Amino acid sequence: MKRQQKIWAEFLGSAFLLLAVVGSGIMGESLAQGNAAVALLANSLATGAALFVLIQALGSISGAHFNPVVSVAEALWKRLSPKDLPLYVAAQFLGALVGVLAAHLLFHQPLLQVSAHARSGVSQGISEGVATFGLLATIALAGKKHPEFAPMAVAAYITGAYWFTSSTSFANPAVTVARMFTDTFTGIAPSSAPLFVLGQLGGMAVAVWAFRKRPL
Amino acid sequence: MKRQQKIWAEFLGSAFLLLAVVGSGIMGESLAQGNAAVALLANSLATGAALFVLIQALGSISGAHFNPVVSVAEALWKRLSPKDLPLYVAAQFLGALVGVLAAHLLFHQPLLQVSAHARSGVSQGISEGVATFGLLATIALAGKKHPEFAPMAVAAYITGAYWFTSSTSFANPAVTVARMFTDTFTGIAPSSAPLFVLGQLGGMAVAVWAFRKRPL
Amino acid sequence: MKRQQKIWAEFLGSAFLLLAVVGSGIMGESLAQGNAAVALLANSLATGAALFVLIQALGSISGAHFNPVVSVAEALWKRLSPKDLPLYVAAQFLGALVGVLAAHLLFHQPLLQVSAHARSGVSQGISEGVATFGLLATIALAGKKHPEFAPMAVAAYITGAYWFTSSTSFANPAVTVARMFTDTFTGIAPSSAPLFVLGQLGGMAVAVWAFRKRPL
Amino acid sequence: MKRQQKIWAEFLGSAFLLLAVVGSGIMGESLAQGNAAVALLANSLATGAALFVLIQALGSISGAHFNPVVSVAEALWKRLSPKDLPLYVAAQFLGALVGVLAAHLLFHQPLLQVSAHARSGVSQGISEGVATFGLLATIALAGKKHPEFAPMAVAAYITGAYWFTSSTSFANPAVTVARMFTDTFTGIAPSSAPLFVLGQLGGMAVAVWAFRKRPL
Repeated sequence: MKRQQKIWAEFLGSAFLLLAVVGSGIMGESLAQGNAAVALLANSLATGAALFVLIQALGSISGAHFNPVVSVAEALWKRLSPKDLPLYVAAQFLGALVGVLAAHLLFHQPLLQVSAHARSGVSQGISEGVATFGLLATIALAGKKHPEFAPMAVAAYITGAYWFTSSTSFANPAVTVARMFTDTFTGIAPSSAPLFVLGQLGGMAVAVWAFRKRPL
Repeated sequence: MKRQQKIWAEFLGSAFLLLAVVGSGIMGESLAQGNAAVALLANSLATGAALFVLIQALGSISGAHFNPVVSVAEALWKRLSPKDLPLYVAAQFLGALVGVLAAHLLFHQPLLQVSAHARSGVSQGISEGVATFGLLATIALAGKKHPEFAPMAVAAYITGAYWFTSSTSFANPAVTVARMFTDTFTGIAPSSAPLFVLGQLGGMAVAVWAFRKRPL
Repeated sequence: MKRQQKIWAEFLGSAFLLLAVVGSGIMGESLAQGNAAVALLANSLATGAALFVLIQALGSISGAHFNPVVSVAEALWKRLSPKDLPLYVAAQFLGALVGVLAAHLLFHQPLLQVSAHARSGVSQGISEGVATFGLLATIALAGKKHPEFAPMAVAAYITGAYWFTSSTSFANPAVTVARMFTDTFTGIAPSSAPLFVLGQLGGMAVAVWAFRKRPL
Repeated sequence: MKRQQKIWAEFLGSAFLLLAVVGSGIMGESLAQGNAAVALLANSLATGAALFVLIQALGSISGAHFNPVVSVAEALWKRLSPKDLPLYVAAQFLGALVGVLAAHLLFHQPLLQVSAHARSGVSQGISEGVATFGLLATIALAGKKHPEFAPMAVAAYITGAYWFTSSTSFANPAVTVARMFTDTFTGIAPSSAPLFVLGQLGGMAVAVWAFRKRPL
C-alpha cells in the first residue's frame, strides 16, 4: 500500500469510529428514558459493530489502528515504520475530531461543544490503564492462530470493556481528546482527560514490555 | 447463475429484509412499554441478524444487493451487467413492498397503510448520505482479505448505523419507498422520503467516485 | 457416524434447545419488571446463542436438525435416509419434552404444567408458515459457499425471526408440542398448537417444493 | 509452549475473566435502575465478549481453560499433562481472585468483601451440574469440524447459559470461590458455594464419562 492510502484509511476509520461512539451515545440517551444501562447497551453494541466493520474494511490497508497508543506500540514492536508513525497519529487525532463534528452534524447539534462531563477519580485512571493493556494484549495475541477472527476479537474486547471498567474504556488518546469536544452522553470534561491519557500511556508501557517477545 | 434466479433472489431477499425491519419494529414497539431505545435495540439486532442470513444465503446467487444504490454502484464499478440493472432494481422495489405487506399480514394489521411519521430536517438527509457512503465503503472494502466475513460486516454496519445516524440509516431507496406504506414504528411519511432518497443518492455518488479504483 | 450416535445427538440437542428456550424465558420474564421487550431480548439472544453452540457441536454427528420439519425436508431432499427419519423425529419430540422438564427442574417449578397462553388468530398461523419457510430456505442456501458459517446463519435466523413474526417463530412441531407443557413465558396453550403445526407444515411444503433443485 | 507461559496465560485469562464478570455486573446494576434483566443482559453479553477474546488470544498458548473442572476433564481425556494440572488449577484460583480485586479497584470499591448474596436451593445446584455438563460437552464437540469457531462457541454457550439456568451458570469452581469475595451483583455467599461446586463436580463427572471416547 502507498503511504497516502494508509493515512487516508487511518483518518477515515478514526472519523467513522468517533461518529459511531458519539452518535450512538446521543441516540441511545435520547431514547432510553433515563435508563443509562439501556443507553450504554446501545452505545457499546453499536461501537463494537462499527469497529468490527472498520477493521474488516481497513485492516489490510493501514492495519486499522485508529489509536495513537496502538501505533506507538506497533512501532516499538517493529511492525510500523517509524516514518509512518507521526502521520498515523496526526491522521488519528484529526479524524477523531472530524468524527465528533460529523456526529453533531448528523444529530442537528451545535458543531462546537466542550464537555462538562467530569470523569475523575483514581479508579477511572487505573481503568484506562487496564483497558489499554487489555486492548494491546488482544492485538498482540488474538490474531496468532486464526487471524481472520482478529477484527471480531478487537471489537468484542471494546464492547465488553465498556462494561468492565468504570471509565467505559476509552483506551485511546485520540478518542479521549476528541470526546472533550462533545457535551453529550460520551463526552469527557477536558479537566478529566489528562488522567485518562496518563492511564492509557501506563497501560501501553506495560503491554509493550510484556509482549516485547510475542507471543506471551 | 441464470438471470431469472438472480432476480428471484433479489425479490425474495428484499421482501424478507423489509419483513424483518417492519415486523421487528412492530413487535419491539408493542412490547417495550414506551422505551424506544429497547424497541430500537430489538429492531436493529433483528434487522442485522436477518441481513446476515440473507446475504449468506443469497450472496452467491445474486450478490445480495436488495438495494438500488448498491446495484447502481456495482454497475458503475463494472461488477453488475448493465442489462441486469433495471431488473435488479425492479425486483428490489417490488420485493420491498411485498415485504411490508407481509409484515402487516403477519401482525394482523391493515394491509394498506401510509405512514404519518415525519422524519425531516437537513440532519436526517445528511445522515442518509453518510450512512449510504459507509454502506458502499463497507461493500467495497470489507470482503477484500477475508470475503467469508463480508456478510457479517454488512450486517454489523447496518446494526451499528441504526444508532449513529439520526435517520436510523435507511440507506436504501427501495426500503425508503416501501416504508412509506407502513404506519408503524419503522414508517416514514411520504413527504419525508424525497429528502432521504436525495441523501442516499448523494452518498452513493461520493462512494462511487471514492472507490472507483478499489481498494481505497 | 453410527445411527445410535445420531439419535443421541438429536435427543440431546433438542433437550438443550428447549432448556434454552424455556429457561431463558422464565429468567427473562422474572427479572424484566414487566417490560416484555427486555424479556424477549434475553429470550431470543439466549436461544440464538444456544442454537449456534448446538449446531456447531452436533452438526457433524446428526446434521443438528432438532426439528421434525427439517428432518422431513432433508429426507425429501434425499439428504437423510428414510430409515433414519422416524427415529430422528421420535428423538426430537422426546428430547424436547425432556428439555422442558429440565427447565422446570432447574428453575424450581412444578415439573408437569400445561400452558394457558393462547396464541391464536390466523396471522400467527401465517407467521409460522413464513417462519418455517425461511428456516428451511436458510438451511437450503446459507451453507453453500461458506459452510462454516451455516450454524451462525441458522442461529441468527431464529434470533431475528423471534421479532419479525407475531408468533415469535416456533417453526418446529416438536418445539410446539413441548411448549404446551410449560405454563411460563414461552408456553403455548394446547388449543393453539394445531394452528401452529398447520402453519409449519404449510411453510415446509412450500420450501420443499421451492428448493427441490437447489440452489434456488 | 513452555510451561511458564501456559501458567501465565491461565493466570492472566482467569483474572481478566473475573474482572469482566464482576466489573460488568457492578456497572450493569449501577445503571439499570433496578431492572435486573437489563443488568444481566449487560453482564452476560460483556462476559461472553470477554471470554471470546480471552480464548482467541490465549487458546494457542495454554488451551484457555480458566476453569479447574475443564483442566481436570482435559487431564482425564489425556489432553493435559498430569504434571501441569496442579499448576493450572493454582493459577486459575489465584488469577480469579486477583480479577475480583481488580474489579473492586477499577470501580472504587473496598478491595476485600464477602458476599451476602445467598444462592441456595437444590435447583441451583442442579443448574450448576447441567451448566457444567453443557460447557464440557461444548468443549468436547464444538471444535471438531471447524475449530476456528470453538472460541465463539464457548463464549456463546456461557452467554446463553446465564439465562437458561437459575444459577446464572458459574460452571467453574475458581469462579465460584472468587465470587464469594465480592458483595456486588455477581457475588455468592460462602454458605452457598459448596452446593455450586458440588453441582459442578457432578456435571464434570457425567461429561468426562459421556465423552470419554470422543466424539459422542
